[in-house]
Amino acid sequence: MRPKIGIVTVSDRASAGVYEDKSGPAIEAALCSYLATECAFEKRVIPDERAGIAATLRELAANGCCLVCTTGGTGPALRDVTPEAIADCCTKELPGFGEQMRAASLRAGVPTAILSRQTAAILDRTLVVTLPGKPASIRVCLDAVFPAIPYCIDLLGGPRLEGNPAVVQVFRPDAK
Amino acid sequence: MRPKIGIVTVSDRASAGVYEDKSGPAIEAALCSYLATECAFEKRVIPDERAGIAATLRELAANGCCLVCTTGGTGPALRDVTPEAIADCCTKELPGFGEQMRAASLRAGVPTAILSRQTAAILDRTLVVTLPGKPASIRVCLDAVFPAIPYCIDLLGGPRLEGNPAVVQVFRPDAK
Amino acid sequence: MRPKIGIVTVSDRASAGVYEDKSGPAIEAALCSYLATECAFEKRVIPDERAGIAATLRELAANGCCLVCTTGGTGPALRDVTPEAIADCCTKELPGFGEQMRAASLRAGVPTAILSRQTAAILDRTLVVTLPGKPASIRVCLDAVFPAIPYCIDLLGGPRLEGNPAVVQVFRPDAK
Repeated sequence: MRPKIGIVTVSDRASAGVYEDKSGPAIEAALCSYLATECAFEKRVIPDERAGIAATLRELAANGCCLVCTTGGTGPALRDVTPEAIADCCTKELPGFGEQMRAASLRAGVPTAILSRQTAAILDRTLVVTLPGKPASIRVCLDAVFPAIPYCIDLLGGPRLEGNPAVVQVFRPDAK
Repeated sequence: MRPKIGIVTVSDRASAGVYEDKSGPAIEAALCSYLATECAFEKRVIPDERAGIAATLRELAANGCCLVCTTGGTGPALRDVTPEAIADCCTKELPGFGEQMRAASLRAGVPTAILSRQTAAILDRTLVVTLPGKPASIRVCLDAVFPAIPYCIDLLGGPRLEGNPAVVQVFRPDAK
Repeated sequence: MRPKIGIVTVSDRASAGVYEDKSGPAIEAALCSYLATECAFEKRVIPDERAGIAATLRELAANGCCLVCTTGGTGPALRDVTPEAIADCCTKELPGFGEQMRAASLRAGVPTAILSRQTAAILDRTLVVTLPGKPASIRVCLDAVFPAIPYCIDLLGGPRLEGNPAVVQVFRPDAK
């Protein structure tokens, strides 16, 4: 059975059909390029509602996703509540993800990256990573943290994900 | 009506008149140099008391300040309680502010910057940013985060603040 | 009386005697090389149990340790609960320690450093610093934060620790 990965687009407008979701497909494309292991993707497009985001994350974790990536809802505006939903359903925040994603966006010339509340956390045995809402910023952030993701999934007892060494250098310290 | 900005000096000694408050005026001078938009400043000098700090922040937010900068009380000592007061009255901590302010202080040759618990957070529609107590460190920290502040205030529905391009490059990603 | 420093190895296997504790001795060796002040070390080796870790930290603080360094239990795995124990018994998290320790490990070529939840916090008048479980990573992390530790202990009202200037540059901003 292929490892399952969840992708959750959090956007009032995309979920209402006001515009097409481009962020979810951008995440899938990035992960497919990184991964030598073939994975099954579970995709959701939902509004910026705290309870609904937490319920979707719980559902994807219960479905066996080893990784869930969200996009959207991490800014300071009133409707941005993705980090609050993660606090409601996850444990063990991993602040290094937010630090490195913000640092990567700053290096890419976006001073407003400091407004992002991006983070990662654990939901049972699932790693949840929050990505920016803008498609152009997703790859910048994922590039900065992906090398550590397969080993994190190992530590959580999940499936072994192999990277595509032409694209990304996956790192497992125990293997050295 | 000019946009309102609050400046809160948190210091037992300055509020008791033991010494003159130099940090509040240093913040006002820095903000005036950055901003092309003329603003009205609301200044307070208060002791290191958690409840009083939170009450002052709430009052300034209710008064319509789009931005409140505090100085002092972010260290590890017993009387340093500014972050605790912010946790009491604010939501949506923005950890990127603390990361960048500490990094800027480290680059300026202050290894003890890692002892600072500086941060930023949202109180209703007001951005609250904590700055160091020492006047010499205030400009180092504000320089590191100010380019993102006007766009944050835009996202919170506040007044449009224009920067003085000879001094600081304000950044608005949507305008690109 | 010599200043007291606590060293707590958090490891199910080391505490059960499955393998020898090498991390605690590595911390003691690093601190002895940094410090010109002779200190007394209180060492504990305990399992990855949240309540037991918190109880040990409280006991060492009550015993007068000005600094307690822990090793282990900061990762994302199920049994990693050192940060949770610290949240139970400490106040005033100092996020700059975690930021700099992760940044130092990243610079040392360990991309999985972003999985670490290392931090520091205050327990009454004791500074608690979490270090990695792997002996090889301990020195990398301590080197990154030690220069600020003696001044932090000053601010908490603890004993004055002098550094060994041939090994480390201890920094006290007030002395400049």
